[in-house]
Amino acid sequence: MRIALAQINPVVGALKKNAALMANTYGEARSAGAGLVIFPELAVTGYPPMDLLLYSGFLQQVERMVTAKLAPLTAGGPAMLLGAPWRFGGALYNCALLLENGAITSVHRKTLLTGCAGFDEHRYFAPSPRQESMQIGGLTAAIAIGEEIWGEHGFYPRQDGGPDPVDELARLDAALLIKLSASPYLYGKHAWHEKNLARLAAKSKTPIIYLNQVGGNDTLIFDGTSLVYNNRGELICRAASFETDLLYVESETLFAPARQQLAPLADNIETIYRALRLGIKDYIAKTGFKSVVLGLSGGLDSAVVAALAVDALGPENVLGLLLPSPYSSSHSVEDAGELAGNLGIRKRVIPIEKPFEAFLDLCNPGGSPLLDLAEENLQARIRGTLIMLVANREGRLVLTTSNKSELSVGYCTLYGDMAGALAVLADIPKTMVYDLAEYINRRQGKEIIPRRTITKPPSAELRPDQKDEDSLPPYRELDPILELYLENNMAPEEIIAQGYNENTVYKVVALVDRSEHKRRQAAPGLQVTSRAFGAERRMPVARGYDYLEGKEE
Amino acid sequence: MRIALAQINPVVGALKKNAALMANTYGEARSAGAGLVIFPELAVTGYPPMDLLLYSGFLQQVERMVTAKLAPLTAGGPAMLLGAPWRFGGALYNCALLLENGAITSVHRKTLLTGCAGFDEHRYFAPSPRQESMQIGGLTAAIAIGEEIWGEHGFYPRQDGGPDPVDELARLDAALLIKLSASPYLYGKHAWHEKNLARLAAKSKTPIIYLNQVGGNDTLIFDGTSLVYNNRGELICRAASFETDLLYVESETLFAPARQQLAPLADNIETIYRALRLGIKDYIAKTGFKSVVLGLSGGLDSAVVAALAVDALGPENVLGLLLPSPYSSSHSVEDAGELAGNLGIRKRVIPIEKPFEAFLDLCNPGGSPLLDLAEENLQARIRGTLIMLVANREGRLVLTTSNKSELSVGYCTLYGDMAGALAVLADIPKTMVYDLAEYINRRQGKEIIPRRTITKPPSAELRPDQKDEDSLPPYRELDPILELYLENNMAPEEIIAQGYNENTVYKVVALVDRSEHKRRQAAPGLQVTSRAFGAERRMPVARGYDYLEGKEE
Repeated sequence: MRIALAQINPVVGALKKNAALMANTYGEARSAGAGLVIFPELAVTGYPPMDLLLYSGFLQQVERMVTAKLAPLTAGGPAMLLGAPWRFGGALYNCALLLENGAITSVHRKTLLTGCAGFDEHRYFAPSPRQESMQIGGLTAAIAIGEEIWGEHGFYPRQDGGPDPVDELARLDAALLIKLSASPYLYGKHAWHEKNLARLAAKSKTPIIYLNQVGGNDTLIFDGTSLVYNNRGELICRAASFETDLLYVESETLFAPARQQLAPLADNIETIYRALRLGIKDYIAKTGFKSVVLGLSGGLDSAVVAALAVDALGPENVLGLLLPSPYSSSHSVEDAGELAGNLGIRKRVIPIEKPFEAFLDLCNPGGSPLLDLAEENLQARIRGTLIMLVANREGRLVLTTSNKSELSVGYCTLYGDMAGALAVLADIPKTMVYDLAEYINRRQGKEIIPRRTITKPPSAELRPDQKDEDSLPPYRELDPILELYLENNMAPEEIIAQGYNENTVYKVVALVDRSEHKRRQAAPGLQVTSRAFGAERRMPVARGYDYLEGKEE
Repeated sequence: MRIALAQINPVVGALKKNAALMANTYGEARSAGAGLVIFPELAVTGYPPMDLLLYSGFLQQVERMVTAKLAPLTAGGPAMLLGAPWRFGGALYNCALLLENGAITSVHRKTLLTGCAGFDEHRYFAPSPRQESMQIGGLTAAIAIGEEIWGEHGFYPRQDGGPDPVDELARLDAALLIKLSASPYLYGKHAWHEKNLARLAAKSKTPIIYLNQVGGNDTLIFDGTSLVYNNRGELICRAASFETDLLYVESETLFAPARQQLAPLADNIETIYRALRLGIKDYIAKTGFKSVVLGLSGGLDSAVVAALAVDALGPENVLGLLLPSPYSSSHSVEDAGELAGNLGIRKRVIPIEKPFEAFLDLCNPGGSPLLDLAEENLQARIRGTLIMLVANREGRLVLTTSNKSELSVGYCTLYGDMAGALAVLADIPKTMVYDLAEYINRRQGKEIIPRRTITKPPSAELRPDQKDEDSLPPYRELDPILELYLENNMAPEEIIAQGYNENTVYKVVALVDRSEHKRRQAAPGLQVTSRAFGAERRMPVARGYDYLEGKEE
């Protein structure tokens, strides 16, 4: 039997569009002689559908799409295995449905719900107590949805005593494990994933077909990268990463030695680049927009975002605004202009001096600058307001450019440089932004991002001769501390025990904790780590800090 | 035995402060002859501690507070029953700990975790499979934490087959049910709660002591209102609502007919008023601030917010900014000025014309107004920038004034009137804002809020002669549709079937869905309904809408 892996890019909530996409893909696979066409987890709704699942009207429409649009296609055609939310006995389950001969003939309901990664499946779904199997084209297949199979790795320890799909394979006499997923990209995921799927297949002597959704949905970037392992745990097929794909595998090959094993996929800066590019592209398209605007400061972050946006959307859809203030260096406008020229995008120069003066006239004695923090924020907010004015008028979305290091310590202005629709670098530490810049230039074989933009000391240029390092530790020192605090959940004392400077650690931790209110109102940020701000890190704003011993009270 | 119900107001994360507060309260109860002092769910950490629970350093400190600071108090003193996160065998549980004679002598671990209300307990805690009982002062007590006892009401159906504390009472031979809670206020909760707790106590012939946390934590407002029922289901004690309290009950009275039953508590506009006042007070205090600033437009929303803020913080801590534009009516400044006078707060008038002109000079041909939506937003953003400038400079928090009706349909400007630290009315429909205004005047016995502010047609005054009803259905028509869509999760067709105008319903639903991006970046809003924006309603921003049949495609 020829099995088709339909690695599609659904739009969350667009049930008709998704069903039409599935029908087209199914038709193509049918023409190619497939006997089974597999779609990802919750393919009909797109993942994650979030609170749309609380609307029974929405669930009715899902049911209508499956029974009236998709199931009829299988009358006389290949079988279809797809993910959809489905109701049984008053409860909602995250299901894999097998459609054959025009009807639903078999169902697997997810047993282990995903509580992390902002999915909160407990909010919507009941867990099934039973692992079920399906008869597909003469094979007995066990189905796993999402992370059900990772119990033994401690990610999802089965404290509820529910079944583990891998342990159940023998009882079910399953010849095959099919894993439907909507698994977002996280840096380092590919290597981990491939190692452990191979191990599970080898250990259980059972082939694994892993089909993953692709595409950006809000801040999540699903990478696709669907995989097929034979019963020796050898990787025999891999679908494209960050692109839709339709992959075929012959069922015989699942039970035979691999003719050639694929080399493991390693994550590197190119993976991050491709993830962010897809994230931008889909966010803009799926919100119904075409073009973007962003501020170009002459600095590194905006240069990298502009380059990514150009690759995602085309230079004709990217507008750069150069918004110099009285404190801008001469090179900032030059460097930003050079970048715009290199990228082939339109640019507009709007000096912010006049509105700045108008605000100072209203609020400062004699209208003279006080050079305080409020005036630094004021400049950022004037820029934000100008960018939004252009965006509103021209129907563009605003890309913000703050990186994860800045967002972590609050080195950014709410309603100023934080104002926008999508924060492209929100999960990218500054040190990695440098790597992205070098990669962008290497990729093009020329200096798209001007050398001076990369080499000059980072500066917000909000007061004379300001440098980031006046307020913050150097990024090469800051970023590892942030990683230990934010990703590894280490207490300050534990970080200090790793050899970091005590004062620096307490300062950084205090900056992070005290800027929670900014992140609460930040633009949605693309996620590429396991502790992206937003759904991944949920901290109270109004709180006490006195559990931090040492410097804080 | 005299039982003390310590209805305390902990600060999330402030372990030392909370432990000190508990120690003081315990000391007071001890002096009053208590044999048992009960504290609420997760009293040591404050509820909800959110991702602080992911830090093992935090959990260690919790354990230190309990074992080194609190347990020793009970050597020779009354027993203490308190809520705390606690680790057993590598898993974390939401626990009730009984401290006696200087040590932890008994533990109940929460069996049914709360998945809704933004608590996401599955993210942090393991559920216990067993209902445990405690021996307290010669009584066998069953413990329930939070919503464990509501299984039979369908809120938390036990699909996992876990124990129901009420069903378990007989098996445990429990004489008493003690429910430790951190239950936020929701409109209508009091009546529901009192009816059902009475029913459970009567049905099981078991007294119920219900102890609830009080205080605002971020956007949640915990109402306190702890309750004691005797074994006939008669309400014999009720603690204060929206205030800390220390209530005593003699254990004998739990098993005797009530001398007098308390009248049921009904929610009304005063309840909402008190909830919001506490929400403001605690948000400001727990973020470490003292004073606020807000824009006074002469309209209803800002008048109500100002009055609430004055009652919460004192007039000396509230500053009103009057920010007239060229399109402001003459009465807007007059009415706002009159309000400020009535409230006894300082006001400052800053006309926004000059910065408005400076922006138009930069962006409009000839600098002339185009009167488009972008310019309406521009005015709101200039105001937001001015308010933030004052806030940054004077160390004040900004209160935003948009109501739930406006936030629902996106009739508000991101980074403009939406800019601020706390959205006081974010969960209050406009029709209820009128009720609040009337209540405020009734309460003071005079027209604090000027009559014209209440009676004039609502207007954003962002273009000549603008009225809200130019863009929106009248609020008395809009609000019920919003309630059906947002709180009852009805599809448009279902709302239309209730008799609402088809075009209006589709327009309203489309406005709600298409303004999700604004709410994503809105200031945190105080919650008083079960579907407040934020944690309570989680919708994708980038999504398709084609499940909405009818007008939308």
